[in-house]
Amino acid sequence: MLISLTYLKLKEMSRKHNIEKAKKLIKTAKERGAKLIILPSLFPVGNTFEIYNNEKKMRSVVKNLAEKIPGNSTDILVKLAMEGEIHLIAGPLLEQAGPKIFLTTLVISPDGEIIGKYRKIMMSEKDVKLGISGGKEPIYVVLDKKYGVLSEDDLFSPEISRILALGGSQLIIGTTRPVNKKQDLIKYVAITRSVENGISYLINGEIIENEDGEIVGYTPTFIATPDSLVYKEAEDEDSIVLVESSMIIQNKEGVNTRLNGIEPIIYGLCKSIKKTKMNEKPIPKPEG
Amino acid sequence: MLISLTYLKLKEMSRKHNIEKAKKLIKTAKERGAKLIILPSLFPVGNTFEIYNNEKKMRSVVKNLAEKIPGNSTDILVKLAMEGEIHLIAGPLLEQAGPKIFLTTLVISPDGEIIGKYRKIMMSEKDVKLGISGGKEPIYVVLDKKYGVLSEDDLFSPEISRILALGGSQLIIGTTRPVNKKQDLIKYVAITRSVENGISYLINGEIIENEDGEIVGYTPTFIATPDSLVYKEAEDEDSIVLVESSMIIQNKEGVNTRLNGIEPIIYGLCKSIKKTKMNEKPIPKPEG
Repeated sequence: MLISLTYLKLKEMSRKHNIEKAKKLIKTAKERGAKLIILPSLFPVGNTFEIYNNEKKMRSVVKNLAEKIPGNSTDILVKLAMEGEIHLIAGPLLEQAGPKIFLTTLVISPDGEIIGKYRKIMMSEKDVKLGISGGKEPIYVVLDKKYGVLSEDDLFSPEISRILALGGSQLIIGTTRPVNKKQDLIKYVAITRSVENGISYLINGEIIENEDGEIVGYTPTFIATPDSLVYKEAEDEDSIVLVESSMIIQNKEGVNTRLNGIEPIIYGLCKSIKKTKMNEKPIPKPEG
Repeated sequence: MLISLTYLKLKEMSRKHNIEKAKKLIKTAKERGAKLIILPSLFPVGNTFEIYNNEKKMRSVVKNLAEKIPGNSTDILVKLAMEGEIHLIAGPLLEQAGPKIFLTTLVISPDGEIIGKYRKIMMSEKDVKLGISGGKEPIYVVLDKKYGVLSEDDLFSPEISRILALGGSQLIIGTTRPVNKKQDLIKYVAITRSVENGISYLINGEIIENEDGEIVGYTPTFIATPDSLVYKEAEDEDSIVLVESSMIIQNKEGVNTRLNGIEPIIYGLCKSIKKTKMNEKPIPKPEG
């Protein structure tokens, strides 16, 4: 299955502008044979959480954007998937679920069905401050292969990747939120995950420009594989990165051998955290 | 406590030559105030396991070098620590323990006492092929601070670092074995570990030259911190990198907050590995 990452320069909060751009890229990707297209975090408005320190502004962004699923943003994505006749992985969006807000990634089929819904597990400090809740269960999407889904900070938890690897993921697809410094860190982490789990990572970044057209933050869009480290990378804004899934899927036996070796270590980790927990128990108050 | 990493160009199998070089660097480090000095993997002969594909040659290297602890190599290290009046972390050495061979790192006090002994846990494919066994327990050394010890491939297991972090390590000290390609990978992984655990990593690499004076492999010697990524790095061969431990120790509260957030995810990992294990149970044979 030919997969396309998109490296969009998103104009902050400009839905119409961004959707038009995405449509063009989806068309190009489709013409070149893509069957699955990844869209960036908080498409179509752009994710600015790690760029601005203005908590008040960010709170109002969260409040304004959070919507039920399905909702406005879902409708936009469903339309893009159906028009393009492609599978779409997009997100996270801000999902309002009762009193809670989650960052939720959607997998949409060419006939507009939501076939996967993943709530980001690993919260950043900012997410927590903005009142966003974390999900609990990693998900896999089975298309031509079994794909694990990651969302933004999830990449920074080695455990989530381990769970996906142990569950048999053959590729991992994730998005990142743009930052205004240390953009390469995301590459180092994705390379590390790729090597330690023996799986390729497809990471979709984005570029954010503000109303004045200044670029305020970005993260790269790239593919990390255990052998090549960075296998492919988007060079220009508003471009796509194409990859045939079968070309970057590792030999399953090799991966299993690697994972078997780490099992006793993971057991050690589980024991260790139990012990730490026990040591942290509050000392009982003296009677009387 | 001022710590010194050493970036030695080791001549393959030339004990005398390498010990002389190390003595000079230890003297320099001590004159500049270092109280703890790290020496490279398989000092003084150099580690060539990942450089050569000649299994027969490597088997004979392992056989020749494996010795009891204390033994010849330990004696050399004890002498260096006592002469230099410094703490020394050196290794791994090839330790012969009954029928088993381990890769064992030693922590030696200025009065020549072995105050820490760590058997490398995470085996590379080569280690396994060469009949080397893995250790089981991570260790901490308490000097001015609590230091976690890593050895070579241990860095590639996120779980070992998590165990060390949960156990309260304030710094991690590790060595790496030289490779003949992708030398930067070790930096990416150390940066990732540093960021995901909120702890600084002191990584001691080495350069290997063969008998003809050709450089056949190396890994960098550097310090990774959560904030600076690469905080310091050895530029030249046969040089030292000095760092004051208190300068790169993170605020403990910050680290704990970070680790609390990942606890439910680690529980998920533990559950997940149990589930995977259950699913792998062989199907019972039909009766008769």
